[in-house]
Amino acid sequence: MSSSQPVPPSAQKSTESKDQDMQERFLIKLGQDAQAVEAMLEGLLAPTPRQSELLRPDTLLAAMRHGALNGGKRIRPFLMMEVARMLGQDHSGVLRAACALECVHCYSLIHDDLPAMDDDDLRRGQPTVHIAFDDATAILAGDSLLTMAFDILADEATHPDAQVRAELVLGLAQNAGIGGMAGGQSLDILSEGRDRSEEEIKQMQAMKTGALLRYACEAGAILAGSTPEIRQKMAHFGRIIGLAFQLADDLLDVTATSEQLGKTAGKDLDTQKATLVSLYGIGETRQKLAQLIKEAEDELAPFGDKADILIAASRFIAQREH
Amino acid sequence: MSSSQPVPPSAQKSTESKDQDMQERFLIKLGQDAQAVEAMLEGLLAPTPRQSELLRPDTLLAAMRHGALNGGKRIRPFLMMEVARMLGQDHSGVLRAACALECVHCYSLIHDDLPAMDDDDLRRGQPTVHIAFDDATAILAGDSLLTMAFDILADEATHPDAQVRAELVLGLAQNAGIGGMAGGQSLDILSEGRDRSEEEIKQMQAMKTGALLRYACEAGAILAGSTPEIRQKMAHFGRIIGLAFQLADDLLDVTATSEQLGKTAGKDLDTQKATLVSLYGIGETRQKLAQLIKEAEDELAPFGDKADILIAASRFIAQREH
Repeated sequence: MSSSQPVPPSAQKSTESKDQDMQERFLIKLGQDAQAVEAMLEGLLAPTPRQSELLRPDTLLAAMRHGALNGGKRIRPFLMMEVARMLGQDHSGVLRAACALECVHCYSLIHDDLPAMDDDDLRRGQPTVHIAFDDATAILAGDSLLTMAFDILADEATHPDAQVRAELVLGLAQNAGIGGMAGGQSLDILSEGRDRSEEEIKQMQAMKTGALLRYACEAGAILAGSTPEIRQKMAHFGRIIGLAFQLADDLLDVTATSEQLGKTAGKDLDTQKATLVSLYGIGETRQKLAQLIKEAEDELAPFGDKADILIAASRFIAQREH
Repeated sequence: MSSSQPVPPSAQKSTESKDQDMQERFLIKLGQDAQAVEAMLEGLLAPTPRQSELLRPDTLLAAMRHGALNGGKRIRPFLMMEVARMLGQDHSGVLRAACALECVHCYSLIHDDLPAMDDDDLRRGQPTVHIAFDDATAILAGDSLLTMAFDILADEATHPDAQVRAELVLGLAQNAGIGGMAGGQSLDILSEGRDRSEEEIKQMQAMKTGALLRYACEAGAILAGSTPEIRQKMAHFGRIIGLAFQLADDLLDVTATSEQLGKTAGKDLDTQKATLVSLYGIGETRQKLAQLIKEAEDELAPFGDKADILIAASRFIAQREH
């Protein structure tokens, strides 16, 4: 809330102060987790001594590092780690599993940036992997990060129980493959330049960005050895987060466009690539985001104070401005 | 042996007849296994009913099918299945694991054929995936086949014991990633146009083609629940097979070139891309192949008659003419 609003009554003030406290604790955790992920990825992507006949070729490793050690917000790892923490697990294996998920996210960015796909030269102000290296190396760096994710998950260091490791692998493969992220990217690319229905857009987004976010939350419950009920609850929370993430992203696109164009957004939005915001309009989108935050809070209510940081996270994701 | 040779003494005749029998049984098994792999892959790559929000987009699935259902010899699946059979395992889970490995092999072919890599338009007389579809879809089809491999391995249907599934995943990821196949492809691409030492070529080949062949054999032992000793023995057998496979491949390249050029091969072989054959010459290469067959036979000796088909397979791989 902005400081120009009238002073709230004390009850409201207390809620506001609690909200602010939750938000601060969340931002600190997010930063800490991002640092921990960066450090763990640094170790996982270190050059290894020349053992047997297998080694890590320098150029390919450098390209993988370029694509993965980029100082991102690491929102997916954070979600996995925070769900696991809420459910009582905070060992180094959780961090490893979170890094495996981040490897998959980074591989998808490397491949999406390729000239054959979105053809982007810059990401976070840095040259993309195929610009810094070459197309072939970027393809192989993506392939290798994807492969490494399963290497990390299947390793005993991630969890002592092989059943847990197998479930983590299965879930990641299902959510990253043709039925998830890769399938969603295919739908997105092939629908360019033609009208899409609300249903089509929802389907594409649920796969392209929703699947990994849902997996992040469900995997936190798998790592914590939760009951099927709690696991399903966390998957549902992740699904809400996925929807909010995408809506907020689309809204941001429109807002940014408005500022650039110097005109009210939401009026003439029949762009080539329809989004849900162009169908709903800005007002209804904001209402839907508020509704999603409410749903997330309801889903987390049984966990009491332990869910504070995840609730703050869902608000952050739904209301973020960059 | 050619029919123009003198009639062998009876002892030799009996060995020859046994060899011929082994070769025939091997070829029958190879054909049967290839059919079984084709049928299982057909099922794994079937369109699925629209469950929840995840589906399989048509175009991407068609591209995956184009790349995977291509009637190959399926030598890697055969090796995995035959090692498992020799060690007493012949359930449908072994076939599933063999198909997972084949998915990884097919993904690597799709990506290797891309314009950014080897730029091949044809494979087995058919247009490659990026020609039949487009580059973006070929990249995603490769990504999705790689991802599906881990989906298949981590599924309970592959093996009831999660520890076995996790070991299968770990082994495949390590042998397919930067320390194996993908790393070898990177070394190969980046060394084009410059001299390579014998050591460099061996390293590249051990990773690019050797790693998956070794895994094929080791995974057969993992599926059979073998002791670490037998598992290591099978990995070593797979390593020999990998070396023989590559040497035979390089030799075939030279022989083909000789016939085309109408001159003796092995004389002026200072091509852009040095192979071991260009370093050894044809005669020494054939000697080395004979030596490798001998090593494979020694490795398999403890298994007696049960190893007949694998011995025939190693001869076939070392002496193949196409």
